[in-house]
Order: sequence, then structure tokens, then C-alpha cells
Amino acid sequence: MAVGRKGAAIPAETVAEIVATAHRLADAARGETLRLFRSPDLRPDNKLTQGFDPVTEADRASERAMRAILARERAEDAILGEEYGAQPGVSGLTWVLDPIDGTRAFMAGAPSWGVLIGLADDQGPIYGIVDQPHLGERFEGGFGRALLTARDGMQTPLAVRRGVDLSQATLMTTYPEVGSPQEYAAFRRVADRVRLTRYGLDCYAYALLAAGHVDLVIEAGLQSYDVAAPIAVVQAAGGIVTDWTGGPAHQGGRIVAAGSEDLHAQALELLAE
Amino acid sequence: MAVGRKGAAIPAETVAEIVATAHRLADAARGETLRLFRSPDLRPDNKLTQGFDPVTEADRASERAMRAILARERAEDAILGEEYGAQPGVSGLTWVLDPIDGTRAFMAGAPSWGVLIGLADDQGPIYGIVDQPHLGERFEGGFGRALLTARDGMQTPLAVRRGVDLSQATLMTTYPEVGSPQEYAAFRRVADRVRLTRYGLDCYAYALLAAGHVDLVIEAGLQSYDVAAPIAVVQAAGGIVTDWTGGPAHQGGRIVAAGSEDLHAQALELLAE
Repeated sequence: MAVGRKGAAIPAETVAEIVATAHRLADAARGETLRLFRSPDLRPDNKLTQGFDPVTEADRASERAMRAILARERAEDAILGEEYGAQPGVSGLTWVLDPIDGTRAFMAGAPSWGVLIGLADDQGPIYGIVDQPHLGERFEGGFGRALLTARDGMQTPLAVRRGVDLSQATLMTTYPEVGSPQEYAAFRRVADRVRLTRYGLDCYAYALLAAGHVDLVIEAGLQSYDVAAPIAVVQAAGGIVTDWTGGPAHQGGRIVAAGSEDLHAQALELLAE
Repeated sequence: MAVGRKGAAIPAETVAEIVATAHRLADAARGETLRLFRSPDLRPDNKLTQGFDPVTEADRASERAMRAILARERAEDAILGEEYGAQPGVSGLTWVLDPIDGTRAFMAGAPSWGVLIGLADDQGPIYGIVDQPHLGERFEGGFGRALLTARDGMQTPLAVRRGVDLSQATLMTTYPEVGSPQEYAAFRRVADRVRLTRYGLDCYAYALLAAGHVDLVIEAGLQSYDVAAPIAVVQAAGGIVTDWTGGPAHQGGRIVAAGSEDLHAQALELLAE
């Protein structure tokens, strides 16, 4: 099932090292984020935390922990992180990190935020992890892997579902307003044709697409660190991710992810009208 | 923190039996629902399931399993279930069952659906369980209990958070359209005043309110079996649940649940404008 982009030829032993490093990043980020998730420090009126934003702190601690591992294990690679920006490298590979995607879900105690760890070459993402620490679910794709590892260590292959007609499809997005009024109107043209639209799942929506439970994810206003890992995971599971014109999506912006070419083409057509 | 309604005087040994039965119902429903959650049978185009709705089947199997336990252990109590309707009793107590609240989340693989088990006397709910099988989280309230039991068996007290100003509050609802255009407009008057509005969490929103992570839940068009267990859990955790006029909420309809009297009063005022 694992397809996705091939990426530049990388020796098998290097791939094994990269994958092991990526999992260590995800493990470290789990520790840092779960320390603050659902903590009383997140109360909006917490007097002990005046001048201190605990979500930002969890975000930063999580990214620092990942950068420390990369400094030890992958010093030759570049890094692009949401919190600490860009750091150049010499290998042609860039780690694209969003330590907490879905900070509003994090603040509300909802388990739809995630840790996003992408690895990109100059053509875009080649490998990624979408980790949901509270659920203990890790979605991983690239280098021939397309796997969900559950809390108990059980692994199941990730594969999009195909052959679902638009009228039977499930569509996800995070914010009901989607983006600008024009973006909202375009989204509605698709939403009005599907069986079911669900909101509020952040990066977890892409994970559910890769796992074959939903058929379309359409969003706008995304950043590159929001999309690198989801693109790798969805592509590895056999799905398609582009911008709303069918072009590359890894710079962020307007994103459409689909489980099949057919649904992807229909969504592009409706979005473009 | 456990307050809630006192209910009619029930002997301690009977309470212990009722609570034990309620947990057995929740355990049975977990087994039945997880058997189909995220199963390939849920594909909308599954040819093997033509003329067979697997969500309805999971719903029914879950309610049947609970009714079988009640027939053995609490034959004197009445039952009101979403799938199999009302069955009279002689004890003055009614079990109010929603075997899968949030079937659309269930269909989409999202872990925000729940099993709702309420126990009501003639005044309304006195005890309830909101169980999320995939997360392994059980929220329970009534008879002096207000507890979250996690997957690993660890128990933590449930308590709403208080002292959060409306401008700092987090509000949840399931559907962005809420209900009728009038209901939507009323909801917007509250949503426009809060810090954060999140969508799509079904009964799990009430669980997050009881656990002190969010401050308000406002919905419309609910049924009695949608609200009995959430009311008991939220009230036991110190929260308030009424309809939009401040009257009893256990018949369903338009619901507002709040972590504090102050937020509840402000929400009622805005909803009534």
C-alpha cells in the first residue's frame, strides 16, 4: 500500500537511522506535551502563570527536546520548526517540526492535536510522523512504510479507502469558517455534495484519511510545518495531497487531501468553480 | 466537589449495586462498540453490508447487551433506550441509554462518540456514565461520586473550573449550524463573546466540561437519552445544566451547560436576547 514519493536514493542503513531518530523525536515530544496537557496550568485565569503562556511553553519545550536530539543524531540536516524557525544544514534534508499542531484543541483538552515531524528533500516531504500523544497513536509514512502504531505497540498498515463516491464521502476541516469568505464558499460547494462533514480535528483528520476512515480533508491558511508530515503520511497510505489548483502543497496555504484520484479531481473542480 | 442532585433516599447497599451494574453496562457496551469502530464494515460502499447499516447494528448490539444485564440485575427498573424505546418498571428508577451518542463521529473514526448510561428518578437524572471506549475514559457522576477512570484504572476527581470570565471562556457545540437559524443566531451571540469555540465533540464536550477543561456547552435539538448521563456527570462535578430558559434540561431540546453560575447566567441572557 505504501506508495508516496520515492525521494532521492538514500542508503538503507541511513533510512533506518532516520526512522529511529524520528521516533525518538516523537517520544520526546510526547513526554513534553503530555506533561502540560489537561494541566491546571492551562486555566485561562491562572494567576501563577501571569505573563506565561503554558501552551506556548509546551510547544517550545517539545520543539527544544526534538532539536536537542537532532543536534546529536542528525547535525548535518536542516531544521524548520514552528517555534524556533529555520536552521541550515548540508545534507539536503530538512526536518519540518510542528511541536503542537492544534493548540486550541490542546487548550480545550480535546485529543485531536498532534506532534508533526516531517522530513523533506528539495522536492517536498519524503517521510513523516503524525503523533497523538494522549491517544498513544502514531501514524507514520514514507520510505516504504505506512503504519499506525497503537498505544500497546500493535502495528497496522495505513491505507486510504478508494471507490467511495462523492455523495457517500466523509469530509473534514478544522474551522467551520475555513478561511476567507471566498474560501468558505468554495469549501461549501464540496461540503454540499458529500454525505458527512465533520469539524475540529486538526492534523488528526489527515491521520484518519490515511487510515481509511474519511475521504477528504480541505483546509486553508496552513503553514509549511502544518502540512509536511501529513502529506508524507497520506501519500504513503496511497492518498493525494495538493493545493486547491492541483499544485504542490508542501508550502502550505490551501490544501486538499483525498483518498482517491477520482474524489481529488471532483473536489478540485468544485473548489475552482 | 461532587454535588449534583441528591435524588430520593436510596440505601447505601442499593447504591453500590446500582453503580456496579452501571459499570457492567458500560463494559458490555465497550465490547460491542469497539468490535465495529474503525472496522472495514463501516465503508459507505461496502457490498457485503448491503441492506445492513453497521452503525445501527453496533448501536443495537450495544443496547441489547445493556438491556440483558438490566434484565438480570435490575428487572424492577424502567428503561428508556434510543434503539429499543421504553420499558416500564416498578422501582421509580429509569435507566436512560444511548448506546452510541455521536454516530457520525463513530462513522468517521473520530474518538468523540460515547456510550451514555443515565439513571433518573421522577425529578430527573441522579447518576450517569459517559464512556469513551476508544480512549478508555469513563466519566461518572452522582451518588456522591464525580470521577474519571482512565484506561489504566487510575481515578481522578471530576470538578468544573470556576472563576473564568466569559471573555476567557471556551465554548463547545457539535454542529456549526447548531439548529434552526434562530438557534444559530442565539448561539453566535455567546460564541462572539468567548475566547475560543470548538466543534464536533458530541457528548465528549460535556465530559471535558465536567473535567474542568472547557467552560460552556450549548446545543439544540437533543433527545432525553442524549442528555440524562451528561447532566448527571456535569452536575456531580459542580456544573449547571438547564434548557435555554433556565428550566429543566433532562427532556432534551436546547441545552446550556456551564462550569459556573456566573457563566450560566451570562449565557442565558445572551441566548434570550
